[in-house]
Amino acid sequence: MQKVIDYLRKNQSRFVQELCDYVRFPSVSAQPQHRQDLQACAEWLLKHCEAIGLQARLCPTDGNPIIIAKTPRSPSARRPHFVVYGHYDVQPAEPFDLWKSPPFEPRIVGRSLFGRGASDNKGQNLAHLKAVEAFLKTGTELPCDLTFVIEGEEEVGSKNLATFLKSHRAELRCDAVVISDTGIPSLKHPALTYALRGIAAFELIMRGPSRDLHSGIFGGSVDNPAMALSQLLAQLRDKHGRITIPGFYDGVAPLSAYERKQMSRLPGSDSAYRKFLGVPKLFGERGFTPTEQRTARPTLEINGLTSGYQGEGSKTIVPAWASAKLTLRLVPNQNPAQIIKLVRRHLAKIAPPTVRLEIKSGHGAEPYLVSPTGPEAQAALRALRAAFGHEPVLIREGGSIPIVNDFKKHLHADTLLIGLALPDDNAHSPNEKFNLDCFAKGQLMGAYLWQELAK
Amino acid sequence: MQKVIDYLRKNQSRFVQELCDYVRFPSVSAQPQHRQDLQACAEWLLKHCEAIGLQARLCPTDGNPIIIAKTPRSPSARRPHFVVYGHYDVQPAEPFDLWKSPPFEPRIVGRSLFGRGASDNKGQNLAHLKAVEAFLKTGTELPCDLTFVIEGEEEVGSKNLATFLKSHRAELRCDAVVISDTGIPSLKHPALTYALRGIAAFELIMRGPSRDLHSGIFGGSVDNPAMALSQLLAQLRDKHGRITIPGFYDGVAPLSAYERKQMSRLPGSDSAYRKFLGVPKLFGERGFTPTEQRTARPTLEINGLTSGYQGEGSKTIVPAWASAKLTLRLVPNQNPAQIIKLVRRHLAKIAPPTVRLEIKSGHGAEPYLVSPTGPEAQAALRALRAAFGHEPVLIREGGSIPIVNDFKKHLHADTLLIGLALPDDNAHSPNEKFNLDCFAKGQLMGAYLWQELAK
Repeated sequence: MQKVIDYLRKNQSRFVQELCDYVRFPSVSAQPQHRQDLQACAEWLLKHCEAIGLQARLCPTDGNPIIIAKTPRSPSARRPHFVVYGHYDVQPAEPFDLWKSPPFEPRIVGRSLFGRGASDNKGQNLAHLKAVEAFLKTGTELPCDLTFVIEGEEEVGSKNLATFLKSHRAELRCDAVVISDTGIPSLKHPALTYALRGIAAFELIMRGPSRDLHSGIFGGSVDNPAMALSQLLAQLRDKHGRITIPGFYDGVAPLSAYERKQMSRLPGSDSAYRKFLGVPKLFGERGFTPTEQRTARPTLEINGLTSGYQGEGSKTIVPAWASAKLTLRLVPNQNPAQIIKLVRRHLAKIAPPTVRLEIKSGHGAEPYLVSPTGPEAQAALRALRAAFGHEPVLIREGGSIPIVNDFKKHLHADTLLIGLALPDDNAHSPNEKFNLDCFAKGQLMGAYLWQELAK
Repeated sequence: MQKVIDYLRKNQSRFVQELCDYVRFPSVSAQPQHRQDLQACAEWLLKHCEAIGLQARLCPTDGNPIIIAKTPRSPSARRPHFVVYGHYDVQPAEPFDLWKSPPFEPRIVGRSLFGRGASDNKGQNLAHLKAVEAFLKTGTELPCDLTFVIEGEEEVGSKNLATFLKSHRAELRCDAVVISDTGIPSLKHPALTYALRGIAAFELIMRGPSRDLHSGIFGGSVDNPAMALSQLLAQLRDKHGRITIPGFYDGVAPLSAYERKQMSRLPGSDSAYRKFLGVPKLFGERGFTPTEQRTARPTLEINGLTSGYQGEGSKTIVPAWASAKLTLRLVPNQNPAQIIKLVRRHLAKIAPPTVRLEIKSGHGAEPYLVSPTGPEAQAALRALRAAFGHEPVLIREGGSIPIVNDFKKHLHADTLLIGLALPDDNAHSPNEKFNLDCFAKGQLMGAYLWQELAK
C-alpha cells in the first residue's frame, strides 16, 4: 500500500494538469450545441482510462455515450466486485458574466481549481481513476474487481441510465456501488452519506363556481375555492410541525441513538443556520433538531399556490378555482405510492361538499438508506478516516438522488455516497471550484476504500 | 296627470327613435379614440335637453363634460329639489365578433332594442328626460325642481365627479338624488334598491426565507410561507361561514322582519341559483338565505393567491413568500377604516413568529342604506307600483356604487336607486339590449315619482 500512496503523492501536479484537461471540455448536457463536446470529452476519458491500464469502451445510448472501464480481471477465484459511478457532463455555465474567469479555462488560485464541472463531478470521479491508476502502475494487486460507469446525462436526469443498467445488468452485477458526487461539511469532517429522502409530488385543484364571480353580487352565498383550499391545506400540518395525514408516520424508521449522536457532531449552530436562511425563527417538527428535521424526518411542503387575480391592485372576484403544488419528502421506510394513497383518501374525506377537489399525482422517488453500522458503511468510514486524518461524520441528505434507486432496482446493489465537495464549491453556480486537497485526499480515500471493502 | 300619461303614450315611437339616435354615439369612455364621440354625444344631449324645455349647459371637467339640465324654476316659494343622475358614456363593445349586429347600429327585435349603452345607461336616463318632457310639453306643473346631472366617465370610475359635486354643491343642494342605473328581477317585480354593501380591500404578504429554498435540503427545518399563509387565512372564516375577526360584526345593522319578508318575495329558487353558479352545494353564513348572505351580510373573500412555482409539473422549493388578495364586503353600519384596523390587529396577533407578515391596505367604500320604510323609499315604491302595475320589491345590492357615497358626502343627500334593467340586458357584455316596456314604464315611473316625492 505504501507504493500506492507514494505514487499518488509524487504525481499530484500531473493529476491536476489532467483534471484541467478534463474540465476544458464544455460538456454541457443541457445544451444541444455542446453535443460534440460531450462526445469529445467521452473519447478523451476513454483514452485516459486505457492509458492507466483499464479495459474501456464507449457504450452508445439514445443520448450521450456511457463509458465502461474495468480493472483487469483476476483469472483466479471470484473476488468482490464494485461499480464506481461518475458523470462527465456538467451544468450550463450561464450567466457567464458572473464568472471571475472563463468557466472552461481552468484557473488555480491557492488550493482551488476553478472551472465548470471541477467539483461536480469531474474532479471527484477523476480522483477514483487516479487511485486505481496508482494500483495498476505500481503493480499493486487490487483486492477486488472494479468497473467504472461514467455517464454524460446526469445533469439532465440520467434519462438513459436505467435502460443501460438493465441491458448490462449481468456485466455490472456487483457487491456495491460507490459514488463520489455529494458533499462534506469541511476537510475536517469527511463524510459518508448513508440516507436520502424520497419524494412524492402532487397537485390539488379546488374548483368552485363555473367562472370567476363578482364578489359583490355573489360573494357570501357561495364557497370561495381559495378559502376552501387554504382550510384544506391548513389542516395538513399541526402547530407542532407534524403532518396530520392518518398513517403518514407508520412506515418511518426511527432514528437510532447512534445516528442522532452522529448528527449532533456536524458543525454549525442553529442561530447561524437561521441567519443563513433569513427567517425570524426556525420551525420544524417538535422533538427533532433542525438537522434531523431536514434530513431524517418526512415533510409536506407547499411549493406553489395559484388562484384568481395576481396582478397589481385588486379584482373583486370569487375565483372559479384555486390550486396548490405539493411535495412530500419521505424517509426510510415510507413508500411513495402508499403515501399518495393515504393522501388521496384523507383529502377526499376532509374536502368540503361545496367545492370539487381534483388530485393529480406527480413523480415519486423512494427514500434510501444504507445501514450506517453495516460492513460497507463501516469500511467507508475507515477509508475516510485514514485518508483525511479526521473522524468522519455520518450524513443523511434531505434531497433525493434518483440514480441510487436505479442501482438498487436493476443491480440489486446498495450505494455508498462518499462525496468530496465542500459547501462553498458553487456546484451549479458561477465560479464552481474544486479543492485540490479534496482531490488528493479523495484519491487516498479511493485507494484505502477497496482494501477496506474487500476485508 | 292624465295629460302627461297620454303624452307619453302618444309619443312612444318618437322616443324610441330618439333612443336609437342616442345609442348611435360610440361614447366609449375607456378608449381614447372615442374622445370626440363623447363630446358629440354630450352636445347632442345638450340640444335634446334644451329642445324639451330644460335650461342646460355643458360643464367642462378634466375629462369628459358633465351636463347640467334644470327644469324652469318657479318664482314662488322654495319647492323640493331633486337631482337625477345618469351617464352618457358606455362600456367598450369588444369583442365585436360576439355581437349579432353592430353595437352602435341600434336594432329592434320584438320589444328589445339592441345596442351598446341601450340599457346602461342611455335608455334609463332618457326615460327620465321623457317623463319631464311630458310635463313641460303639456304645460303640467311639476311639483318640484329637478336638476339632471349626466356625466361621461361613469364606466371609468367617475374620476371627475367628486370635484364637480364639490364645486357645484350650492347649485346641486337637494332633497334626494334619483338614479336609474340598477336592475329589476322582471317586469312583474319593479324594484327599489335601498342598500349597498361597502368594501375594504387589502393584501397579505407572508415572507419566509430570503430566497426560494431547495425543499429537499432545507424542507422541514423552516416554516413554509405558503402553509403559514394558508393557516392564517383558514382561521378567518369558521365552518358556519362566520368571519372570526373579533369585533367584525359589531357595527352590523340587523335585518328587520320587514326587510327579510321583502327579500323572500324575490323570484328564483336556491336550486336554480346553485345550478346557475355551477357549484355542487351553496355555502354561506348560517342562519341567512342566499339572498341575505350575498346582499345584507358582510363577507371576507380571497380574490387571489400567489406563491412559489405555478408552471407545469413541479419545482421542489420552499417558496420565499406567499401572498393573498382579499376584499371584505361591508354592510350598514360597518366602517371600512375601522374594519381594516380590526383586521390588522387580529392578523398581527395570530401570525406565527416564524414568518414576517406584511399587510397592504387598498381601496375602501362605505356601505349604503336608505331606510326602506322612510318617506322617500315609500314614495318610490308607490311610483313603481303605479307605473308597472305590480307590487314592487325591495332589493339590497351586494356590490358598491361609489358615486352614491359621493352624493352623500358632498351634497348630504340620500340616493334612490330605481333601476330599469332586466337581468338579461347584457350590460357590459356583447348584445346589450334594453326592453322597450321597461323604457315606457320607466317614463311613467318618472312621471309618478315627482308627484309622490313632493307629497
